[in-house]
Amino acid sequence: MKALVYNGPDSIEWTERPDPKIEQDTDVIMKVTTTTICGSDTHILKGGVPDTPLGTILGHEGVGIVEEVGPAVHNVVPGDRVLATCVSACGHCRFCTSGQYGQCLNGGWALGHLIDGVQAEFARVPFAQNSMYRIPDSLSDEQVVFLTDILSTGFETGVLAGQVAPGDTVVIVGAGPVGLSTVLTGRLFSPANLVVVDLVESRRKKALELGATHAVAPEDAKELVMELTGGLGADVTIEAAGFPAPFELAADLVRSGGRIANIGVHEEPVTLHLETLWAKQVTITTGIPSTLKIPQLMRAIETGSLDATALISHRMPLSETVKGYDTFKNAAKTNALKVVLTNG
Amino acid sequence: MKALVYNGPDSIEWTERPDPKIEQDTDVIMKVTTTTICGSDTHILKGGVPDTPLGTILGHEGVGIVEEVGPAVHNVVPGDRVLATCVSACGHCRFCTSGQYGQCLNGGWALGHLIDGVQAEFARVPFAQNSMYRIPDSLSDEQVVFLTDILSTGFETGVLAGQVAPGDTVVIVGAGPVGLSTVLTGRLFSPANLVVVDLVESRRKKALELGATHAVAPEDAKELVMELTGGLGADVTIEAAGFPAPFELAADLVRSGGRIANIGVHEEPVTLHLETLWAKQVTITTGIPSTLKIPQLMRAIETGSLDATALISHRMPLSETVKGYDTFKNAAKTNALKVVLTNG
Repeated sequence: MKALVYNGPDSIEWTERPDPKIEQDTDVIMKVTTTTICGSDTHILKGGVPDTPLGTILGHEGVGIVEEVGPAVHNVVPGDRVLATCVSACGHCRFCTSGQYGQCLNGGWALGHLIDGVQAEFARVPFAQNSMYRIPDSLSDEQVVFLTDILSTGFETGVLAGQVAPGDTVVIVGAGPVGLSTVLTGRLFSPANLVVVDLVESRRKKALELGATHAVAPEDAKELVMELTGGLGADVTIEAAGFPAPFELAADLVRSGGRIANIGVHEEPVTLHLETLWAKQVTITTGIPSTLKIPQLMRAIETGSLDATALISHRMPLSETVKGYDTFKNAAKTNALKVVLTNG
Repeated sequence: MKALVYNGPDSIEWTERPDPKIEQDTDVIMKVTTTTICGSDTHILKGGVPDTPLGTILGHEGVGIVEEVGPAVHNVVPGDRVLATCVSACGHCRFCTSGQYGQCLNGGWALGHLIDGVQAEFARVPFAQNSMYRIPDSLSDEQVVFLTDILSTGFETGVLAGQVAPGDTVVIVGAGPVGLSTVLTGRLFSPANLVVVDLVESRRKKALELGATHAVAPEDAKELVMELTGGLGADVTIEAAGFPAPFELAADLVRSGGRIANIGVHEEPVTLHLETLWAKQVTITTGIPSTLKIPQLMRAIETGSLDATALISHRMPLSETVKGYDTFKNAAKTNALKVVLTNG
């Protein structure tokens, strides 16, 4: 088969690799029909994820058709249309049994990181019983592909961890694909104000199209949020950028008693202003999604209350994945959000 | 009457002041029988709390007898033995109605901070309906005085915010009076390991006497905690010191999926290592107690499961409050924990 292989920093190629085989009773072999490229794939490509072995097939956002199932897999059968989630959950460790699949001691974010991933014609998906969902016939690959990661991340790690509620003022700092997924899933709770902060005007425009009530540049955020909240600050702030300045802005914009949900993948420490926050009764959360909310989000897609296809900026055949990376990495020039890759 | 008055950084005196009067319908005038000195009083004395007006009577941990009640006060009557909590709660603002009394928009930590406090022969206690509790005849002043602040702080802001549970490994960084209050109230949930970290040997010894299972110096904490938890880290870490290094230690010792509860009063920012914590699904909390758990803790004292009198290191008459501050500030020399001051 052909696959997108990581050969080291700044070096990927679309090349021949052996077909994957069932290695564990809990594996599924999936023919990939649709996949996409994630910010964390580009972190690996930059050399920012040193535990990814050279030669790994990248990708952790896979939709496809079941080819073969291991003897311990009972939730899917060959021929099923399925999605494989970005985290692989053994289902029995202390973290899985408490619903924290992202921390699974035997899996977690493994696909396209520690083991071969789904930017390939075929993929081995471990722990399929807890990490694979059937797709209703009524939904297309494009409608569900973002459930595998960014919609789950925005919803679980942003909206649910931040406890977004009707009437809230919510600030999302960062309007990349994950920030916009947070807009789409945050809307489901009918906040009064859904403020998006981003440096880039085209992303602010997209955020407004997708349901943000306000979209501003970082330097204008404080004045707007204080005006919207009578000087109190936002009920919930969500960091979806992964840099110190946006995190510190999120922490500065939250009200007393409010929540700061970090989604961003950070590569360096941030400054936490405990000299003011110690007394403010704030809650700060971090994490990786469990992906356990996929059935709930899938129903929201089926009923029309959630539609993330507007995040697709580019469509390419799977064989052009290298070009897909170039397009995605150069978003400033290409305006890329999500590049969807399809196989045949 | 006589009172302990703050005249500016490093300047307090025990001096004559007018008797307090009912100013609002919701006030109570209390004759103070027992009070104590808190770390935040010494923060004011160091000049670290600039919004405290010169001339303020300090103190926010008061036990006494009701002298007079305003017409809107119905929970106590003259002659009742009562305690006044460190936070004054209006009971009707958005924070009070959600149980976050520490953030009350009309009160909060006001006593001995923004208005005259309880290190005096008499005190005006605002919002008494939501900020004053009757004391059962069976309990002495000394048994309940720490409910007004440090027991509530350790319990609510440490133990409850950190969600301490049976079988947990809990680390408390800092074994001053608030850290030790966290030991005493954390024990009520039967954690498997209650590890206290402090630089000072006498405080580590005290922690063991009060129920800590382990007490170590900061440099030995990581090895012990990893050994106790099979390399995972602590379920809950609680910062009870108020400096960057202990906070950063607390954040370093927590396991994936764990909780970091900050109690310490900080005067400078800390470094938050989001480059590792972003994925670990941790929850960080800050805050001031609501004091709403005082009835629960009072029952624990009545039934014998909680006894904080061992925190009393010194007893003095109220008229010697200035000496009490000297003793408390020089804890390195005096081994002071809590200095209890009694009136007549």
